[in-house]
Amino acid sequence: MRTPLEESVLRRIRPREEVRAQILAIAERLMAAVDRSEVAQGMIVGSIARNTWLEGDRDLDIFMLFEPSLTRDELEERGLALARGIARDLGARFREKYAEHPYISLEFEGLDVDLVPCYRVTDPREIKSAVDRTPFHTRYISERIKGFEDDVLLFKQFAKAGGFYGSDQMTEGFAGYLCELLVLHYRGFSPLLQAASSWRRRTFIDIEGIAEKSFEDPLVVIDPVDPNRNVAASVSLTRKFEFVELARGYLKQPTISFFEPPPPNTMGSQEFEDAIRRRGTRLYGLRLSTPPYIPEIVVPQLRKSLRAVKGLLERSGFLVNRVDSAMGERYCLLLFELMVDHLPQVCRHVGPPVWEADNAAKFVSKYLEDTLSGPYIEEGLYIVEIPRRFTEARDLLASKECLNTGLGKHVKKSMEAGWEVFQDGECWSAEFSQFVSDFIRRSSPLVRIRRVENGFPPARDTSSDQSLN
Amino acid sequence: MRTPLEESVLRRIRPREEVRAQILAIAERLMAAVDRSEVAQGMIVGSIARNTWLEGDRDLDIFMLFEPSLTRDELEERGLALARGIARDLGARFREKYAEHPYISLEFEGLDVDLVPCYRVTDPREIKSAVDRTPFHTRYISERIKGFEDDVLLFKQFAKAGGFYGSDQMTEGFAGYLCELLVLHYRGFSPLLQAASSWRRRTFIDIEGIAEKSFEDPLVVIDPVDPNRNVAASVSLTRKFEFVELARGYLKQPTISFFEPPPPNTMGSQEFEDAIRRRGTRLYGLRLSTPPYIPEIVVPQLRKSLRAVKGLLERSGFLVNRVDSAMGERYCLLLFELMVDHLPQVCRHVGPPVWEADNAAKFVSKYLEDTLSGPYIEEGLYIVEIPRRFTEARDLLASKECLNTGLGKHVKKSMEAGWEVFQDGECWSAEFSQFVSDFIRRSSPLVRIRRVENGFPPARDTSSDQSLN
Repeated sequence: MRTPLEESVLRRIRPREEVRAQILAIAERLMAAVDRSEVAQGMIVGSIARNTWLEGDRDLDIFMLFEPSLTRDELEERGLALARGIARDLGARFREKYAEHPYISLEFEGLDVDLVPCYRVTDPREIKSAVDRTPFHTRYISERIKGFEDDVLLFKQFAKAGGFYGSDQMTEGFAGYLCELLVLHYRGFSPLLQAASSWRRRTFIDIEGIAEKSFEDPLVVIDPVDPNRNVAASVSLTRKFEFVELARGYLKQPTISFFEPPPPNTMGSQEFEDAIRRRGTRLYGLRLSTPPYIPEIVVPQLRKSLRAVKGLLERSGFLVNRVDSAMGERYCLLLFELMVDHLPQVCRHVGPPVWEADNAAKFVSKYLEDTLSGPYIEEGLYIVEIPRRFTEARDLLASKECLNTGLGKHVKKSMEAGWEVFQDGECWSAEFSQFVSDFIRRSSPLVRIRRVENGFPPARDTSSDQSLN
Repeated sequence: MRTPLEESVLRRIRPREEVRAQILAIAERLMAAVDRSEVAQGMIVGSIARNTWLEGDRDLDIFMLFEPSLTRDELEERGLALARGIARDLGARFREKYAEHPYISLEFEGLDVDLVPCYRVTDPREIKSAVDRTPFHTRYISERIKGFEDDVLLFKQFAKAGGFYGSDQMTEGFAGYLCELLVLHYRGFSPLLQAASSWRRRTFIDIEGIAEKSFEDPLVVIDPVDPNRNVAASVSLTRKFEFVELARGYLKQPTISFFEPPPPNTMGSQEFEDAIRRRGTRLYGLRLSTPPYIPEIVVPQLRKSLRAVKGLLERSGFLVNRVDSAMGERYCLLLFELMVDHLPQVCRHVGPPVWEADNAAKFVSKYLEDTLSGPYIEEGLYIVEIPRRFTEARDLLASKECLNTGLGKHVKKSMEAGWEVFQDGECWSAEFSQFVSDFIRRSSPLVRIRRVENGFPPARDTSSDQSLN
């Protein structure tokens, strides 16, 4: 039962028949080229194979299935040779890329085509690398999707607009395959949203009833072709519940906004500076050169480094409100919003319990001569108040302390060559204007939608409340 | 085995023979007066009865033991009548005081004499009020103290000098009876210090092996005359371990300082102001009129109020370093040393988990229109950033919020009539100069002794470190 709103959305996102025919023709042509080589067998995988791609998608994945008897080196060598040959025959621009093993990416007739070598295994338990699983996913979905294609399209569009589509490190959201499985499991777009509305902290879905291990992830969807794999492992707790609130919001009051990406809302430099002044917090940015690795490597390291530096700030007494990180082409930015960036000389240092006689004696003699207060005893522990090493957050963020605090490996390497510390308005730059704007205006997707619909400002603006100045 | 140091201390603190004879003569005279009444029997109790008083002590306690068949009212009436008669016969100034029941306190020949009515019960299990227990304590100690009197004198002097003598609310330390029991239990001053050196977080002593219940206190010494009573219930964890560190310090390097009260070390107004400036913290004092009750009532209420206002400051985002309270004749002072007394507009408010659908929806609609950031989702919880109610600690401490935060009853009553908020140097006054100086220079007793002996300043002074300015 589709609503008129959903029908109108579908008319926009369902691929047009002529595009469909054109893409399938290209796919057939590429598969035929693979088959002709007689060393491998071609297979369309991904959303195009499953008939669940959205109008405008341009990604075509062709897998080249080789004999499992090949060694890994042989597979890589022959796979690349075959793919390069095909690309050259087509006269297409191509380049080599790397996932678990190398593959060829080429541009052809407006499509981004990946030619990926893998092993043709007959049982998913015998796969040798993650890509070998993909053909099984495609077969599993293709055999069951009939009648639910539109539901998948609606859900994918809902997920894209809501910012939770994609299993990459930046998004921490829902992969296409996960979207398909959820639609199949709940039998449609609306029933899926209904179910998600009452998801609790942890959700466990095992469509085929085959789970062989347990998972700690907020959302667990056992892969129907691999009982030891959680298809939703990438989904963060935040992303899961952003979906949940969107599902509730849509069921309560469905509007077109749920299918449209939020309008860009980037602050200019001056607007940004004013917003920070109104908040009264102190914003610090730590900018480093982007390490020469792909986002899947760098982004988790940025997050780790962010936590590490946040911990350093907190251990040093600076109250942190929020932090976030971004990876740009040239630079990465770690952002720290502090409640307090200046602290008094006095630093309270907790020593050993008095009943640990040796430690206690060492502590007292260490701090006998020169303290601001103490050592004194409080709740059985020695306490001493000594001069603080860093009374200014800026000095701490500019100090070598940052390097010794559990940074990600490549982030540390980059920072060893130097980094810059920005303060307040300085954190704004053209490269990161969207990121720093989103940081300041942070809201959940549903809140953003409701505000736009109600004509409320996305965040309190200059004209609002006098008491804030 | 007494050291020459201890012998020389004993020569100073052991009551002189002529004083002793004089006090005992007065005691005999008072007891005879009680006995002559034929309604009660006189008994010397306390340290004079036990031969454990220090030269200079002037407190003489005479108990008047009445028949247990009397009602409480009869006991009080007859006890006061008898005591008043005795005081008048002596021509002594006297006044009525109150503990569990009223008694008469008089000044006679330079002594502070208490005439206290109680019941003459034969078994400590039959006592009707706490004072009835005292004769049993006196008998228990008197029968056993022979040969340990000097050890008790040394330990009492050690406790007085170390600031842990007295079971009152201000001191939270060791009562005279507890000192006597500990000396008896460990059989001497030195063995007691040896034992205390390795006391752990909790210490349990049951001399007669009669304990009938368990206690949570840091130091438990079961009363030999009452298996349900901890003689050391008044001893705080801090006071216990100040004794422990003094015991260790004395055994390691015994000096006369362990028997001498610390030299007074009061800061003047300017010195105090400079010390705060060097610390860089913000000091706030909250001054109220002293409630018209005895310290045993008011002091615990001040402590409770101190914790309550500290909690209010912390809940409101202000970092507290230390707090303390003092009760003066006219005023009481609550002192708060803050790391931070100014906070930004932004106040982070944690809402319900998203999976609690009803609460979540209420939260979002409440904060939809006007926030600084959010609502957004973090770790499954809604968070919103809203304007802070109090950005200045001073405003909070001057606000009615303080009255609704679990103050002690009489403290609240006094504050309902008003209070003053002092800042930094304003916290100094002649009445509280010692208290605020001790607050700033806070050190454990052993540290204080070692500093004096080593010629170190009690706290970092103006001349010390340039980097502090």
